[in-house]
Amino acid sequence: MATRKGNTLFLDTAPSVISYGAVGSKKESEGPLAAAFDRLWEDSTLGEETWEKAECRLQKEAIRIALEKGELSPKDLQVIFAGDLLNQCTSSTYGLRELGVPFIGLYGACSTMAESLALAALFIEGGFGERAAAITSSHFCSAERQFRFPLEYGGQRTPTAQWTATASGCVILGAGGEGPKITAVTCGKIVDKGICDVNNMGAAMAPAAYDTLSAHFRATGTKPSDYDLVLTGDLGVLGHQIVTEFFQQDGVDMGENYQDCGMLLYDIQKQDMHAGASGCGCSASVLCGYLLRQMEENHLQKILFAPTGALLSPTSSFQGESIPSICHALTIEK
Amino acid sequence: MATRKGNTLFLDTAPSVISYGAVGSKKESEGPLAAAFDRLWEDSTLGEETWEKAECRLQKEAIRIALEKGELSPKDLQVIFAGDLLNQCTSSTYGLRELGVPFIGLYGACSTMAESLALAALFIEGGFGERAAAITSSHFCSAERQFRFPLEYGGQRTPTAQWTATASGCVILGAGGEGPKITAVTCGKIVDKGICDVNNMGAAMAPAAYDTLSAHFRATGTKPSDYDLVLTGDLGVLGHQIVTEFFQQDGVDMGENYQDCGMLLYDIQKQDMHAGASGCGCSASVLCGYLLRQMEENHLQKILFAPTGALLSPTSSFQGESIPSICHALTIEK
Repeated sequence: MATRKGNTLFLDTAPSVISYGAVGSKKESEGPLAAAFDRLWEDSTLGEETWEKAECRLQKEAIRIALEKGELSPKDLQVIFAGDLLNQCTSSTYGLRELGVPFIGLYGACSTMAESLALAALFIEGGFGERAAAITSSHFCSAERQFRFPLEYGGQRTPTAQWTATASGCVILGAGGEGPKITAVTCGKIVDKGICDVNNMGAAMAPAAYDTLSAHFRATGTKPSDYDLVLTGDLGVLGHQIVTEFFQQDGVDMGENYQDCGMLLYDIQKQDMHAGASGCGCSASVLCGYLLRQMEENHLQKILFAPTGALLSPTSSFQGESIPSICHALTIEK
Repeated sequence: MATRKGNTLFLDTAPSVISYGAVGSKKESEGPLAAAFDRLWEDSTLGEETWEKAECRLQKEAIRIALEKGELSPKDLQVIFAGDLLNQCTSSTYGLRELGVPFIGLYGACSTMAESLALAALFIEGGFGERAAAITSSHFCSAERQFRFPLEYGGQRTPTAQWTATASGCVILGAGGEGPKITAVTCGKIVDKGICDVNNMGAAMAPAAYDTLSAHFRATGTKPSDYDLVLTGDLGVLGHQIVTEFFQQDGVDMGENYQDCGMLLYDIQKQDMHAGASGCGCSASVLCGYLLRQMEENHLQKILFAPTGALLSPTSSFQGESIPSICHALTIEK
């Protein structure tokens, strides 16, 4: 039976990672984490007719690989928790529709890997099934035309802009097992500090990351140095700096082991990524392509994984609204 | 501890309805269920500047009313499961951002009331918290301009078209309590039978309803006549007829007590609603404004609530894709 402290749930059964898969495309293949991906496509169409269909394909491949590596078939899953950035979350619904597995659609913007993983962990912990998958994706080209401008427009990017990852990551959780375990989950609240600049997601999301990480530290009685890595999702360079400063004001040193998936996926300078990577696929592929491998190889024992999401839409911004954000955090340990 | 049969979970703790609230606007006030709403606005702007902000307001009011009726404050909730039809689910995120309650964003199109209620029930059943809210909304005007045409265009509606409800419904579940209980949940799979007509959602979603209802009947060993009401979400006249015929082919008579929320919310003939009502707010307000009152007043003892969602987007349709659909089903009984 799980126990609760504040908004943090401690999972006794400790659902464990049975398998995982990460896929990406060209920019990801040129980044420092390339070797950790299961599959990378040079052509970001993945041979599909449209960017949206290419993104569906990313999810289809990520779950296929995760199932294959775990020697599982879709019927071994009791549920899939999935979501993405596209309107009506169509990468998930079209990418996963053929599997015949009970499906729970999510929208948590770039926090979706944490949201799906948290729900999958609670599903296993609650004894509702033996195996649950958590998956998300993003695609630079489908995101640009939906949220910003058509690529053909050739818009200039601001220094605080981030590059949406063309990637997907899938984790399959189960009861028992030898893999890394989810031992604590903090579900985040919506935090909105009034930032309206849609080209500065790091600043908009940093307060949510700070809120959830603080709550998680308080409830678990831990500090940043108790983890081998504390990872926010896709705050990028600026958001990472803001979170560090917020904690400094509380007298908490986030230290060297505080990183952000958006700063790890690409070589920011060499690949000219401005503030870093973003998109649901960023934290998903960094988790499923890098972090879980590092844990498997014993380079990491205990991490705090805390992706953030900006819950705006182009319409809300056109109507002058600020950017509400959210962050969910999970302790993953061996 | 919940038990599982197929994709159906039987909930032993049986999370119960602590409180609920439903709000709507002009068309809803002219329909046969008007008296069951907690609040109805004559002006569908609700005094807000935009249709989107009006829809946010619907959610804000629905949860405020549910909390008030239950003599609860936001801090009594451990989580909110919410979603809607707008791109990036902004009615939920903007409508609920001020509450300071852990937030799980969902996308299940018009199945969202079932999806959110199912997750809230599992959350309580798993012992993860004492109270959880499930909420969703839709607004005719925000949906029309996002999915179809701007209202000013004055587009003709086809005979199979449905009218998006301008409404919201919120249920608060808790452990124990005297209210109606959620005793079984069937999480649906994505079903896509190749229907591409975006003006015929009933036909697109009927196979998903049939799939989930059949699974629920099999797992629970029940038949339609074992329920006082079997309710799909917003299939409308045509979808309701298709589901009835599917079951006829199996030798199962859905009978008189099989209804569809989309056929109950409005007086279809008098209000010229073509195939009936739809939108997340349809099944949400019929549940929270009518069904739960009927249960409270002992007119209904046991119902099967099974809203359906069409998981398409305008972009997927423009790209020639068919319409994947989903249906989740819950047994609610006194």
